[in-house]
Amino acid sequence: MNIVIIGTGNTASVLGRKLKAAGHCIVQVYGRNSKDASELAYELATESTNYWNVVNKEADIYLLAVSDIAIGEIVRELHFPGKIIVHTAASVSKFILDKSSEHYGVFYPLQSLRKEIQALPDIPMIIDASDPTTLGQLKMLAMTISDSVTIADDEQRKKIHLAAVFCNNFVNHLYTLAENYCNKEGIEFKLLMPLIKETAGRVEFVSPGISQTGPAVRNDHATMEEHLKMLDAYPEMKKLYVLLSQSIYFEKVS
Amino acid sequence: MNIVIIGTGNTASVLGRKLKAAGHCIVQVYGRNSKDASELAYELATESTNYWNVVNKEADIYLLAVSDIAIGEIVRELHFPGKIIVHTAASVSKFILDKSSEHYGVFYPLQSLRKEIQALPDIPMIIDASDPTTLGQLKMLAMTISDSVTIADDEQRKKIHLAAVFCNNFVNHLYTLAENYCNKEGIEFKLLMPLIKETAGRVEFVSPGISQTGPAVRNDHATMEEHLKMLDAYPEMKKLYVLLSQSIYFEKVS
Repeated sequence: MNIVIIGTGNTASVLGRKLKAAGHCIVQVYGRNSKDASELAYELATESTNYWNVVNKEADIYLLAVSDIAIGEIVRELHFPGKIIVHTAASVSKFILDKSSEHYGVFYPLQSLRKEIQALPDIPMIIDASDPTTLGQLKMLAMTISDSVTIADDEQRKKIHLAAVFCNNFVNHLYTLAENYCNKEGIEFKLLMPLIKETAGRVEFVSPGISQTGPAVRNDHATMEEHLKMLDAYPEMKKLYVLLSQSIYFEKVS
Repeated sequence: MNIVIIGTGNTASVLGRKLKAAGHCIVQVYGRNSKDASELAYELATESTNYWNVVNKEADIYLLAVSDIAIGEIVRELHFPGKIIVHTAASVSKFILDKSSEHYGVFYPLQSLRKEIQALPDIPMIIDASDPTTLGQLKMLAMTISDSVTIADDEQRKKIHLAAVFCNNFVNHLYTLAENYCNKEGIEFKLLMPLIKETAGRVEFVSPGISQTGPAVRNDHATMEEHLKMLDAYPEMKKLYVLLSQSIYFEKVS
């Protein structure tokens, strides 16, 4: 398909690479910042613009990979009747696009995307559309870049995103706290890498509720008390230690 | 080396397999429960006992892979002067062993071990000992089963364990909460697998503090408010959502 990518951030860049690698033609990149736009366009072997009036009008799909707030601003500029317009946001309704075209939808990548990492990750695609024909076309497009394509409406997509916040944002923050603690206490954070990998890898084979280990699940007060003392100088970690331990124990007994 | 393994749980089983695979001779398995002991002994091609008075007295190393509480009970039974006696516990001082032999130490696997999983994970070994000779022998032994061997005293080992609680126990609990939520909301938890893998895999290349994403770090109140509303029926998750989001934002601005 012929695709115009609107946006130059992580989602625009990584989806752009995925789509190009799958054989689609990125006919143009639009970006507010002309340098960012031309850089991404160069990478995707296409042209770029930062003017709305020169956006290519002949593409099949217009992919809005911009911040939630920017979507609302852009749809005021973007009117391409007969074309498919999609956004990539978890928490924005598909209906925000209904003034831009009668064919619209959502093309949400359920993955943490970082453009500076060149290796392309597996990306489950969560899609939705205004009508069955558009949905079919988006599904075909999604299947060219992913083995996992799920149709979900606005509400279901938000729920998926909320679960993702726990598995990605919050998990990553626990890694951050552990790394800070290690740095301050003279421990090599790298030591924990095999444990981090094992913990994440195991979820695929064993339900995490079953494989829970540690002082909280065995209600080992002596160890937990000692840990809390060790966290006196780390009040943020200490609060989280208490609440997470309570939640683990609550989960076990409930 | 000739090794007697005391214990039949996850640590005993997985370390036993690792040591056997590295060419050591497990001369005996001791377990309170004779069935568990004979099962592990069968797997490690050796004999088993559940009587202290028939524990093999000619081994080089006695590996106490039992619960923290059981260590104290066992050392009252175990007196093998001239032999090396080690425990595998993160939070128990090495000095608990000083009545059992003049050569003692700690052989702590920094990994989440589950005996039902046959694939042997990478296990960073954290060791300590009563004297330089014993430390040297434990280091040699550890290097036969691991590429990552670190010497750490009681205090340092406890700190490593505390960091591990954040990266393993607490992370796994967030997976559990997300899985429960998905099950209740009709979302396939498996959808999140690529995200979980990417999040854990990235830590090896990018400091997690740098790669933090999500509504909390960009202070996206609209999304966070909506998520909190969606969590009204999940009070445990809601409390954690608030505290973790605050902690992410605090981390960013501090």
